[in-house]
Amino acid sequence: MKIHNLSAGPGVLPEEVLRQASEAVISFVDSGLSLIEQSHRDRYFEEVMSNARNLVKELFQLDDSYSVLFLQGGASLQFYMVALNLLKSKAAYINTGTWASGAIKEAKKVGTIDIIASSEDKKFSYIPKDYSIPTDADYLHFTSNNTIYGSQFKAYPETSIPLVCDMSSDIFSKRIDASKFSLIYAGAQKNIGPAGTTLVIVKKDLLGKTGRNIPSMLDYQIHIDKDSMYNTPPVFPVYVSMLTLQWLKDNGGLEWIEKVNDLKSQTFYTELDSNPLFEGTVVPEDRSQMNATFLLKNEALTAEFEKMLKDAGISGLKGHRSVGGYRASMYNALPLDSVKVLTSVMREFANKFA
Amino acid sequence: MKIHNLSAGPGVLPEEVLRQASEAVISFVDSGLSLIEQSHRDRYFEEVMSNARNLVKELFQLDDSYSVLFLQGGASLQFYMVALNLLKSKAAYINTGTWASGAIKEAKKVGTIDIIASSEDKKFSYIPKDYSIPTDADYLHFTSNNTIYGSQFKAYPETSIPLVCDMSSDIFSKRIDASKFSLIYAGAQKNIGPAGTTLVIVKKDLLGKTGRNIPSMLDYQIHIDKDSMYNTPPVFPVYVSMLTLQWLKDNGGLEWIEKVNDLKSQTFYTELDSNPLFEGTVVPEDRSQMNATFLLKNEALTAEFEKMLKDAGISGLKGHRSVGGYRASMYNALPLDSVKVLTSVMREFANKFA
Repeated sequence: MKIHNLSAGPGVLPEEVLRQASEAVISFVDSGLSLIEQSHRDRYFEEVMSNARNLVKELFQLDDSYSVLFLQGGASLQFYMVALNLLKSKAAYINTGTWASGAIKEAKKVGTIDIIASSEDKKFSYIPKDYSIPTDADYLHFTSNNTIYGSQFKAYPETSIPLVCDMSSDIFSKRIDASKFSLIYAGAQKNIGPAGTTLVIVKKDLLGKTGRNIPSMLDYQIHIDKDSMYNTPPVFPVYVSMLTLQWLKDNGGLEWIEKVNDLKSQTFYTELDSNPLFEGTVVPEDRSQMNATFLLKNEALTAEFEKMLKDAGISGLKGHRSVGGYRASMYNALPLDSVKVLTSVMREFANKFA
Repeated sequence: MKIHNLSAGPGVLPEEVLRQASEAVISFVDSGLSLIEQSHRDRYFEEVMSNARNLVKELFQLDDSYSVLFLQGGASLQFYMVALNLLKSKAAYINTGTWASGAIKEAKKVGTIDIIASSEDKKFSYIPKDYSIPTDADYLHFTSNNTIYGSQFKAYPETSIPLVCDMSSDIFSKRIDASKFSLIYAGAQKNIGPAGTTLVIVKKDLLGKTGRNIPSMLDYQIHIDKDSMYNTPPVFPVYVSMLTLQWLKDNGGLEWIEKVNDLKSQTFYTELDSNPLFEGTVVPEDRSQMNATFLLKNEALTAEFEKMLKDAGISGLKGHRSVGGYRASMYNALPLDSVKVLTSVMREFANKFA
């Protein structure tokens, strides 16, 4: 049976990427060796790393004032690294959910954090819109898409101070003006590739201003100076990320994927809004295109709904263990068909039980 | 042509492990999904992580006073984390090469480091043996095997203070009394699995004594509390590590691999010592069983030797770019046959040019 993978991450990857990745584990190009048992200093892998970094620049149309890194440790390590590398006196943060809170918690270990806006008052069910950004802060940090609560920034904050964004769960899902950002980071395991590498895009002139003696592995400048190969990189995750970025480019890049993602999220939310048995958890204007969170109004029907999901091959729809309910994650590689299978089940379920 | 992979790391992996890993990238057990596109919170991956951690304890015969973690960032991040988590007043370090020096450099960013012994005076061509270990140091750190310079501790320092060891390039290569160590760490990409995860084995009662407010991702205790799943783990590297550890156990564990590795290194060094055209770079009693470093006495014959290596399918024999020469890395998964092919080439070369 075909499985429809609506997992929030690690998430669905393109079938052809999985095929290529599987082959490379046996034999990689003309090296005669597996991808995962050859030196990262061989020209074979150096080309992979270089391609992956260039694809990021190309998709985001970034010039050479930016550097692209594939690091380890997930967005969670970036929570700390961002502050360690950029925070001098104080930084401004917007709190829109679990991961934004995590970023704030780790940055506080480095310096003063000014939480200028938060949607915690209403269980993170919206994106704050009325706030002023202090012009004396070193940077403004926000989380573009909230994987757990299902909200998403539709317009980005306008400010003259450096803009830093955790884009883990919606990077490369639509066209954006990436040049407005000073630093973007994203765990790979949603729209970029498998778990095990973290993309960091950083404007180079932002660095070297804190006067701090930074541990080498946490220092962006060291990774930049070594072309993202300061130590052995996570070879397989970087390779599969390269394949996925190439797949995105070959299919038409961000312009193409934006249309696909618009169609998928419209298909889902249209069903949600017309279905009497379900309700969304986020105010409509801030709903995420990547992670649609919703509840079954009558919890007594849970077993029936979940049986129908299972019979239809729908996997990974459970909400995050901290919030419950359901969450349809519709990352780049999820086919429109999988969304249609889900909405059909929801409709059939309503026809039966409403 | 069969390639003999003598790369220093990422290094050779067992063929059956590569086959299983390749299959899992297409479809993993009965999940219907690829290993790399399913949630790490699924029971499928939770079992992988749990198996991997248990295999480490089993191979090293460790009791529950130890915790096993699969982290990210390589041994290079451990250089800093060790000091951050353990260093209160001062720590003792032995400097036996590039990675030991790296560990010292990062630890100095945390506190006072006492370098109690070093072989830098003779280009790290031996293991220091005469030194006293300060009993008031928080721990003694050393590097069991020197991947770049090709030396290896044959006996471990005896001390009453906690023993911390970077075993990246010789872990699981022979029987050891692991219970003598308070903390062992190792990048996976030599004897454990592919690049992208780092094994940390830590005695739990060692932690929580510095009074330091440690960033979450750098705090061993947080990773222990979350069963090595504080954030999304590097799924594929951990899975392949589990397969490799299982392969080691199934074949007879450390007792078996010790015999295999003894035979491989004896085969190599016997040829080296009887061959008139080559010389080793390390004093015989400290030569590494994992990374045998040697020089061609007459450099004018370089092209001839390297052509013969290539014709025999020998890959990855170049010494580290910082030291030059040659290095035969004979990790666990390297078959004895590959060593024999190398020694045959060396003998044939001597017959032709000596």
